[in-house]
Amino acid sequence: MKINFSTPSGFPEFLPGEKRLEQYLMDTIRRVYESYGFTPIETPAVERLEVLQAKGNQGDNIIYGLQPLLPPTRQSERDEAGRGDTGSEARALKFDQTVPLAAYIARHANDLQFPFARYQMDSVFRGERAKDGRYRQFRQCDIDVVGRKELSLLYDAQMPAIIAEIFSQIQIGDFLIRINNRKVLTGFFSSLGVTPDRIKACINIIDTLEKVGVDKVLVGLAAQGLSPERSQQVIDFIKIQGDVDLVLAALNEFAAKLPDADRFKLGIEELTTVINGVRNLGVPDNCYCIDLSIARGLDYYTGTVYETTLIGHEALGSICSGGRYEELVGTFIGESMPGVGISIGLTRLIYRLLKANILQPLAATPTQVMVLNLQEDLMPIYLQVSQQLRQAGINVVTAFDKRPLKKQFALADKQGITFCVVIGTEEAANNRCQLKNMATGEQVEVSIDALANEVKQQLG
Amino acid sequence: MKINFSTPSGFPEFLPGEKRLEQYLMDTIRRVYESYGFTPIETPAVERLEVLQAKGNQGDNIIYGLQPLLPPTRQSERDEAGRGDTGSEARALKFDQTVPLAAYIARHANDLQFPFARYQMDSVFRGERAKDGRYRQFRQCDIDVVGRKELSLLYDAQMPAIIAEIFSQIQIGDFLIRINNRKVLTGFFSSLGVTPDRIKACINIIDTLEKVGVDKVLVGLAAQGLSPERSQQVIDFIKIQGDVDLVLAALNEFAAKLPDADRFKLGIEELTTVINGVRNLGVPDNCYCIDLSIARGLDYYTGTVYETTLIGHEALGSICSGGRYEELVGTFIGESMPGVGISIGLTRLIYRLLKANILQPLAATPTQVMVLNLQEDLMPIYLQVSQQLRQAGINVVTAFDKRPLKKQFALADKQGITFCVVIGTEEAANNRCQLKNMATGEQVEVSIDALANEVKQQLG
Repeated sequence: MKINFSTPSGFPEFLPGEKRLEQYLMDTIRRVYESYGFTPIETPAVERLEVLQAKGNQGDNIIYGLQPLLPPTRQSERDEAGRGDTGSEARALKFDQTVPLAAYIARHANDLQFPFARYQMDSVFRGERAKDGRYRQFRQCDIDVVGRKELSLLYDAQMPAIIAEIFSQIQIGDFLIRINNRKVLTGFFSSLGVTPDRIKACINIIDTLEKVGVDKVLVGLAAQGLSPERSQQVIDFIKIQGDVDLVLAALNEFAAKLPDADRFKLGIEELTTVINGVRNLGVPDNCYCIDLSIARGLDYYTGTVYETTLIGHEALGSICSGGRYEELVGTFIGESMPGVGISIGLTRLIYRLLKANILQPLAATPTQVMVLNLQEDLMPIYLQVSQQLRQAGINVVTAFDKRPLKKQFALADKQGITFCVVIGTEEAANNRCQLKNMATGEQVEVSIDALANEVKQQLG
Repeated sequence: MKINFSTPSGFPEFLPGEKRLEQYLMDTIRRVYESYGFTPIETPAVERLEVLQAKGNQGDNIIYGLQPLLPPTRQSERDEAGRGDTGSEARALKFDQTVPLAAYIARHANDLQFPFARYQMDSVFRGERAKDGRYRQFRQCDIDVVGRKELSLLYDAQMPAIIAEIFSQIQIGDFLIRINNRKVLTGFFSSLGVTPDRIKACINIIDTLEKVGVDKVLVGLAAQGLSPERSQQVIDFIKIQGDVDLVLAALNEFAAKLPDADRFKLGIEELTTVINGVRNLGVPDNCYCIDLSIARGLDYYTGTVYETTLIGHEALGSICSGGRYEELVGTFIGESMPGVGISIGLTRLIYRLLKANILQPLAATPTQVMVLNLQEDLMPIYLQVSQQLRQAGINVVTAFDKRPLKKQFALADKQGITFCVVIGTEEAANNRCQLKNMATGEQVEVSIDALANEVKQQLG
């Protein structure tokens, strides 16, 4: 029988050079997260279904339940795992890292220090409808800080600093972190007299401004019962743009004119605190702005919200988003645990940046030096030289297969290996070797003892 | 309704200090793997069931099939994912990394360079019966080198060098890598006149020697039709011990005396080549030996096999095992692709080493410095100092919550944060700060510009 060995639809995998790129990005992201004191956690891929569904079914996506398949030798058996596919024992694959974070905190609350700042870079699973750049398994690189009862707004201010540091380090061009506060939005609509049950609809409508344009937004707002005058105020409001200080001043002006503006003012105050923090953290002015049209679709955000766009590549959508929430993480233990977090959808980001030629795969191997095989009888020397380089922190392969020298060079070149070391009878007798730099084509003769240093020097 | 938020049975998770230990071990393992030129890959957690079962059902373990759960809004729908629970679209979670490696090579054969040396550190899933230290999701750190048609035995020789390097670096005490060759075993039995269909049974019997003792092994061999004289030869054979050269000499003596010893001699030759390679790679003599009782349960090994035991903690079992195989990886494309690999069952290893007190969790946070909060009005300075330290590669948290100084120190101490930075009005006015080393209790005053260097120097 012919086996279909392709990956299941929606579960792609990287070639080595792409995987190495992912690892480089993960290392960078992790280093920045840790520089702000975030500690790693990992939750199982599998959780109880009741835990995963505690906050709903993640939109209209499919959750992957587990169906234990007994081996032929155990078909008659119904062990614990076998009972696990329905009822209270039902288990499924996690579809995000927020619900598992809530469960993790509930499970270990007594062993954790608060504010609890953690990062998590696991794969999550969603039965997404197949679309370009949507996957059913993908890695998210999340951070969240969670407090008990309260959490300083300066944690909100750190998030843009972290985003800016990461995207500066990975050098994918200019980016803009757009910051808003949902209380500014909800407070504004409330001051306009929009009833609470309609505020969400209004926010969803203005969230579409960029896509559909002003006219359609006006139609939408009218359908929600806003007078033309009020609707115009909404448009004027979300069009406030420019320098953050100007935007804050404009918001304060608006607030002064509007009735019942307590919530609106609270939002402005929070936003001001966050923006001042971002500034004091030294984030370059051109990296962030206040964008009043940012609402974030997810219902659970209650304060600060973020989106990040790559300048010139706005069609990619937000490459890092997040926000502040009040009622999410404490769910399982019935405690108030405000949190703020951001997420980088790494898998999707890599595929899109590769496709857009903004990132390129790395070399297909981490090998820096190939020690060539000229004569079998010199193999002990090749092995010893290889080990000597490894001890110096250099990644080495020894060519074990006897092939024409030209082929060995070609193999090194094809894999992006920078150096080849050539040792024949004469070199071996004199404890020397030829070092060829495949990038420059230059070849130097050095003593074997000096080889590691020479390689390091040429690597720079 | 009260939700059971505990992890599902068999799916444990680490506390932050344990997770940091895992990450430290993964970083170390990865660095050693890369120093030998292994390149990372990651295959999806989910494969087609027919792929996973191509080589059988992984013993009598349960495979976790996927059962897509449609959200309420899509109950009437049967989309692509919905069809995926039976038949040719059935998908399941991978239970090892060898079958996925075979599939990966089949999928990308034209994009890979051979010999293809890859490492993979993913989680795999098995419906194991619950036992101490057995998990249903666990991480394996595997390497394999796969050749097209042939593969030098020196790749087999590198494996003990890699194992020795890893376990030396992670400092868990003395270890012994036990090396054998299955051709030595099967060739020996064949020379004794044991028919091929009974060789496997005999190998399984001698594999139990350490557990059940000589007498029971003799009974077992008799049941396989071996005469008392032949059985005694088997015992004499597997009891050959000592210096590798003595063992090889004893094997050659045996081979000279036995009829039809071609396969036996081939095994000895392979073993000799591997041992010479291990020696030439500089692996310390006391780290490895030839152990003729090592057979590895898995059917697919055809040549070199390895097990690694921790001296003084033999009850932990093998902490790193593997071997050479001929017919595994080429399965899907019907090509001969010999390979050799090893696997570290990391999750299990960590739990056992923690339990045996051989390893301890790391600090619960990567934070090295906490900048304390004395006065809210100095916050801009605290933020700036924090950023300055981060730019120097130091992990920092800023204390945003205003608490008594004593509590802030206590919080740092409890989390294992080594340094606290104290800046009051006077220090701020003079651009200076107090640096307290929580480990030594010493406190020094330094200028803010010199702070990063002082911290680095004290960290050593």
